[in-house]
Amino acid sequence: MVTLKEIARECNVSPTTVSNILNGKPKVSEETRERVLETVNRLGYRPNYIAQGLRNQKTKMIGIIVEDLAQFTTPEIVEGIMRYCEERGYRSIVKNLRLYARWSDSWYNKDSDYHAILEPALRELTSIMVDGIIYVAGHARVIHCFAEDFSTPAVMAYAFDNNPRIPSVGIDDQGAGYEIVRYLIAKGHRKIGVIGGRADNIHTKQRLLGYQKALFEHQILYNPEWIRYAAWDEESAYIEARELLKTEVTAVFCMADRMAGGVYRCLNEQGKRAGQDMAVAGFDGQEISEFFIPGLTTMALPLRKIGHVSAEVLLKKIEGGESQGQQDDEAGRILIPCTFIERESIHQI
Amino acid sequence: MVTLKEIARECNVSPTTVSNILNGKPKVSEETRERVLETVNRLGYRPNYIAQGLRNQKTKMIGIIVEDLAQFTTPEIVEGIMRYCEERGYRSIVKNLRLYARWSDSWYNKDSDYHAILEPALRELTSIMVDGIIYVAGHARVIHCFAEDFSTPAVMAYAFDNNPRIPSVGIDDQGAGYEIVRYLIAKGHRKIGVIGGRADNIHTKQRLLGYQKALFEHQILYNPEWIRYAAWDEESAYIEARELLKTEVTAVFCMADRMAGGVYRCLNEQGKRAGQDMAVAGFDGQEISEFFIPGLTTMALPLRKIGHVSAEVLLKKIEGGESQGQQDDEAGRILIPCTFIERESIHQI
Repeated sequence: MVTLKEIARECNVSPTTVSNILNGKPKVSEETRERVLETVNRLGYRPNYIAQGLRNQKTKMIGIIVEDLAQFTTPEIVEGIMRYCEERGYRSIVKNLRLYARWSDSWYNKDSDYHAILEPALRELTSIMVDGIIYVAGHARVIHCFAEDFSTPAVMAYAFDNNPRIPSVGIDDQGAGYEIVRYLIAKGHRKIGVIGGRADNIHTKQRLLGYQKALFEHQILYNPEWIRYAAWDEESAYIEARELLKTEVTAVFCMADRMAGGVYRCLNEQGKRAGQDMAVAGFDGQEISEFFIPGLTTMALPLRKIGHVSAEVLLKKIEGGESQGQQDDEAGRILIPCTFIERESIHQI
Repeated sequence: MVTLKEIARECNVSPTTVSNILNGKPKVSEETRERVLETVNRLGYRPNYIAQGLRNQKTKMIGIIVEDLAQFTTPEIVEGIMRYCEERGYRSIVKNLRLYARWSDSWYNKDSDYHAILEPALRELTSIMVDGIIYVAGHARVIHCFAEDFSTPAVMAYAFDNNPRIPSVGIDDQGAGYEIVRYLIAKGHRKIGVIGGRADNIHTKQRLLGYQKALFEHQILYNPEWIRYAAWDEESAYIEARELLKTEVTAVFCMADRMAGGVYRCLNEQGKRAGQDMAVAGFDGQEISEFFIPGLTTMALPLRKIGHVSAEVLLKKIEGGESQGQQDDEAGRILIPCTFIERESIHQI
């Protein structure tokens, strides 16, 4: 097999130049780059990234395991991770567990099925000697993902690992729920209905806590009859909206933009309009919220930032040499605030 | 380093059983699975996928290169690829070039910048000895991606490689444009405006060709004044919609759901309604189209199917042993039809 040095000799450049070109670094003339790549192709040289890793002790490669690439939150988190890693000279590679595609949303009760999918992915990444792993969850919950003695540096993004040595980076659901309800109150609304996600979900519970705190702070009574739960989708939210619109609420706080879609449909059927006859708040800041008429006021999830911070924490672990179980005993949870997006769906009363 | 055989002996099972468990295959009792995994962890065994590949000649791993994971079309195509690969016993791994994140949509004019990003990704995948590569483009065009002498089996998804030996799997834009316009004509519309994407884009050109064919077939004159081009987004389509709604068109065929959003906004401002005062057709079948009120009639992109077919073609190449430049000279382009979704935005006149 031809070596890097032979390529360099053939092209009359230094081995470092060849290496820089192969690793896509700039600062080389186009002519040299083409000549070297032509020689690489002609002589059939293949850089051995694994051997490179063994030599340097580090592969400068991080592994990203995603629960499901087709969850709307995932690509943006991955983009945040990759942008940061690239800036710091790390490559990255993605493994997709396809959990939602496989089992819809029933899978988080199937612990052994889950581990039968997860473990080969973890082994594959440790086998190609990644320097660290970021696990990107599809929704917030406590997961038993990384074993107590897992020795590769790892970070959990968008959920929490029950291994206390694994740092987790999630969203500040409670703060965001508090903030959007405080905005509704500032607009004069005191009878505020809620369409939450599934009742046992961490996002739902934390956003509801934020709602309750905002009410308490403004000495508004909490009416549990106005709190309804749906399945995060338009259809189930529409059914709850029909009930909620029979009450005296003047505003509805929906814990997902998709669910706000159900409220809009219901209002439309009654000849009513959001931001005029009923205030509607969304959550997530998904693309759909831009297309609602009138535009939906919502809380955007800080997805890129979650990716960015997860990568930052991981690289700190890798470069600090905390790889052999020398992490802090309690790595802690980092909560990233959401971003308020004001549009026209909440009127002053 | 502990071997597979030693693990098997320690657990009193066959090496095949250990291997099956490590590769996540079913048909093993939960008790055995746990015992083996406990032993694997205790003794610190790491399966060497690379060595496995060398032994078997094949790694049973395919590489997926995506132009940008955050393009809305990409995760679904990748899901289609992975589902098929998994069914056939192949693992897969994703490399993300981040082209849109890096350069917005200006990058396809920067050939050497593009190759400086692409080539390290290709080399990395060949270095971990993937059996084949699928390249998932962000939008249709002719790309110079795989060199003439690229020796790993490869398939281009959602665009066309100008290397005639690389099979390409795209969408049947022309057929879809034809079909949706024929539907508008069947509903009595003969004055049909168009809001296309960028004029030099393959999607735009092919969908327009479908529109022209449908008109010709029904002996309807083609009025070039009613063909307008926008930048695929809501804002630019809104500007074109304002002009188009001043003409005598009774229907607007938008080449993206996002652009149909601009027409809806314009109609709303004029106190008009889609599917009543103006027929509106979308394209893409994005999630947003479900949330339009009234629901948007559109053409759904066959993204999973594109992934599925790309993987099918690739595995056929891999398993047919066509890896060393023995592919058909002209591998051909496969066009997958879109799926018509009928909602309420097109009325009979």
